[in-house]
Amino acid sequence: MAVQAVESTSTSTVSLGPAAALSCRECGTRFPLGPIFACQECFGPLEVAYDLPSGGPSQAAALKKRIEAGPDNIWRYAPLLPVPADVADKPNLNPGFTKLVKADRLAAELGVTGGLYVKDDSGNPTHSFKDRVVAIAVEAARAFGFTTLSCSSTGNLAGAVGAAARRAGFRSCVFIPHDLEAGKVVMAAVYGGDLVGIEGNYDDVNRFCSELIGDPLGEGWGFVNVNLRPYYGEGSKTLAYEICEQLGWELPDQLVIPIASGSQLTKIDKGLKELIQLGLVEDKPYKIFGAQAEGCSPVSTAFKAGHDVVRPQKPNTIAKSLAIGNPADGPYVLDIARRTGGAVEDVNDEQVVDAIKLLARTEGIFAETAGGVTVGVTKKLIENGQIDPAKSLVVLNTGDGLKTLDAVAPTTGPTATIRPSLDSFREAGLG
Amino acid sequence: MAVQAVESTSTSTVSLGPAAALSCRECGTRFPLGPIFACQECFGPLEVAYDLPSGGPSQAAALKKRIEAGPDNIWRYAPLLPVPADVADKPNLNPGFTKLVKADRLAAELGVTGGLYVKDDSGNPTHSFKDRVVAIAVEAARAFGFTTLSCSSTGNLAGAVGAAARRAGFRSCVFIPHDLEAGKVVMAAVYGGDLVGIEGNYDDVNRFCSELIGDPLGEGWGFVNVNLRPYYGEGSKTLAYEICEQLGWELPDQLVIPIASGSQLTKIDKGLKELIQLGLVEDKPYKIFGAQAEGCSPVSTAFKAGHDVVRPQKPNTIAKSLAIGNPADGPYVLDIARRTGGAVEDVNDEQVVDAIKLLARTEGIFAETAGGVTVGVTKKLIENGQIDPAKSLVVLNTGDGLKTLDAVAPTTGPTATIRPSLDSFREAGLG
Repeated sequence: MAVQAVESTSTSTVSLGPAAALSCRECGTRFPLGPIFACQECFGPLEVAYDLPSGGPSQAAALKKRIEAGPDNIWRYAPLLPVPADVADKPNLNPGFTKLVKADRLAAELGVTGGLYVKDDSGNPTHSFKDRVVAIAVEAARAFGFTTLSCSSTGNLAGAVGAAARRAGFRSCVFIPHDLEAGKVVMAAVYGGDLVGIEGNYDDVNRFCSELIGDPLGEGWGFVNVNLRPYYGEGSKTLAYEICEQLGWELPDQLVIPIASGSQLTKIDKGLKELIQLGLVEDKPYKIFGAQAEGCSPVSTAFKAGHDVVRPQKPNTIAKSLAIGNPADGPYVLDIARRTGGAVEDVNDEQVVDAIKLLARTEGIFAETAGGVTVGVTKKLIENGQIDPAKSLVVLNTGDGLKTLDAVAPTTGPTATIRPSLDSFREAGLG
Repeated sequence: MAVQAVESTSTSTVSLGPAAALSCRECGTRFPLGPIFACQECFGPLEVAYDLPSGGPSQAAALKKRIEAGPDNIWRYAPLLPVPADVADKPNLNPGFTKLVKADRLAAELGVTGGLYVKDDSGNPTHSFKDRVVAIAVEAARAFGFTTLSCSSTGNLAGAVGAAARRAGFRSCVFIPHDLEAGKVVMAAVYGGDLVGIEGNYDDVNRFCSELIGDPLGEGWGFVNVNLRPYYGEGSKTLAYEICEQLGWELPDQLVIPIASGSQLTKIDKGLKELIQLGLVEDKPYKIFGAQAEGCSPVSTAFKAGHDVVRPQKPNTIAKSLAIGNPADGPYVLDIARRTGGAVEDVNDEQVVDAIKLLARTEGIFAETAGGVTVGVTKKLIENGQIDPAKSLVVLNTGDGLKTLDAVAPTTGPTATIRPSLDSFREAGLG
């Protein structure tokens, strides 16, 4: 994505709850809240900075009580997000508070004794974690007076933006490569906003979007993953909040998180640190593990080589929702994995498919390929001793198997085909 | 489905919460709880009879408090279901408590001013309401000591049983017609239990299952929609409970419910009546409307003709999850629609597709064809004056659009395809 600074014309009047400013992750320079995404000093990425309560025991207890009395979706954490206080009353898809499944049968297969949990984000409205980040971007778009919601996408995000825009009453215009699979095009188009195929690959689509933002044609347009990216990214913090609340306000010992751009992993770490700072959980060490597919493993390659810099790769994997060859947050991911004592690992496509099936046959959860990557990497990290099976472990499933049927279709079919008779049933050895 | 009585060998020791007996819906004869589904006196269908609290004000308040403190799934209603009191602690997919969406934009399009809500069951674990009924059947299967969970299915149910069986630790064996669409086979097979294709149509599959139940080969097998059907059906009551609780413990004025076998509609009515009897909601009249696809409309045909008897039809509609030509509960549906002042109506396949798109573009909800049927019928009933737009209205979406992509694919695609340039964007008239 091109680094580009766009001046905001409406920075002084927006009210986004506890969000105080945008802050450069590289040089720390602060900017008023606005639809900008790159530091005007050093071109570093911007993120939301907050005025949060101090974290004293009585304040922590009051905040916990307020959260627990909130709605069963991400807005229960509104006091910790860049959204207006009355966000729950606005039309929104209201994602989040998805199930944290105690996965005892998977634990038995993997030899985990310290408690294994799957955070299953296939339960979101459009069945991927993207609903979380888009929901926050929608509120930022409202605050900045945008009327069109947009994004570049190859799948999950297109559906999430299309759906969220319609519920919230925005015009939407989503850009996709023109040669996307038919099923994904249907999912992106069914919500009825504009869907534009671009003659080119995903990089061409992204370049075009950056051009559009800088042009008067793009006035009034909020691109969730470009000029609204600092807000959008904050949505992933809610995964950290929910996991800890669902564990009874405790930090897990270990987390396995998929890496596409790496933003989700860094924001989950940010969310965990906030909970500690606010006194909502007791401080203790936790380890963060990143998961990639071998066919697109720039971060795990750098991790294993001991590098600080991530060298771009050309993706070639069935885990298409993770196939970002030049992940923007790669260096931050390396830093977090090393700082927490975690690791970054990858699995090949065959292992991804095996892991999807393992999760399905042990827990009845049908995961997207990205979920196969996290479960597969978890298995590998247990086998090579990097994950401690005696400590608690949370594995993310960020999407739904119905969206990546092709990954398992060639190896998934009936056990037997029989005539409708007991004799035929008996002959097939099924009795 | 063949009417067949199977003697239970384990009737006296089961403990299924408030469930007291099975009762014949035709002659009222009661039987001990067991894996039987047809009256041994008159062959009428059996349903679960309960020992419920009296409904005095203090008892109602206590029950309400207990429910509200319960888990965010159907087990919050365990005191009203045929399940053991500790059901929430057992491994189960824990479906339910799906979103009741206030559909203001759809209301505006349809001219509804009294409050329009969509009960969106695509949020269940395998993305259809079947998870509710299967979850109850699983607990019955546990209570009766079954070790294999089974069903005949053409789609949604196969996935729901496969997933639930794995989570709960049962062996599963699901029977499907051998020529099912590849996508549906993948969904049914991915959970890894036995999946058996039967050379024949759905009727042949059903006949075979009935034969298997009566044979020693089928010993220890719980067929969720055959010998566990009385329990299974009760899962649909939770839709009534949730709708009323989510409306602030109030009955809606009007409900639109899809009809396949008709069981869901009759059980929702049963659930609403229980809430009144228990004093959890104030008694007031409500109208129940049934929705069918024109290509499989035996109940709406009978309703419009003023008949009490439903004449079977050969289904031919894209709404395959509703395509039961000889619906077992058809006469009960007719009775409920007439008794409550509702109606049964149907829409054609084109209207189903239009309604799927209408819901998607107004509310960002991508419904299965069955959801297109309910929304389409709602529109029709408002236009012909049978639904009162000034009164509250709840419309059910019982499944997910991802499962019936083919229905909308031919008419859903990009708005435009352009080169990656602002000029090309401008020429397409998108600016």
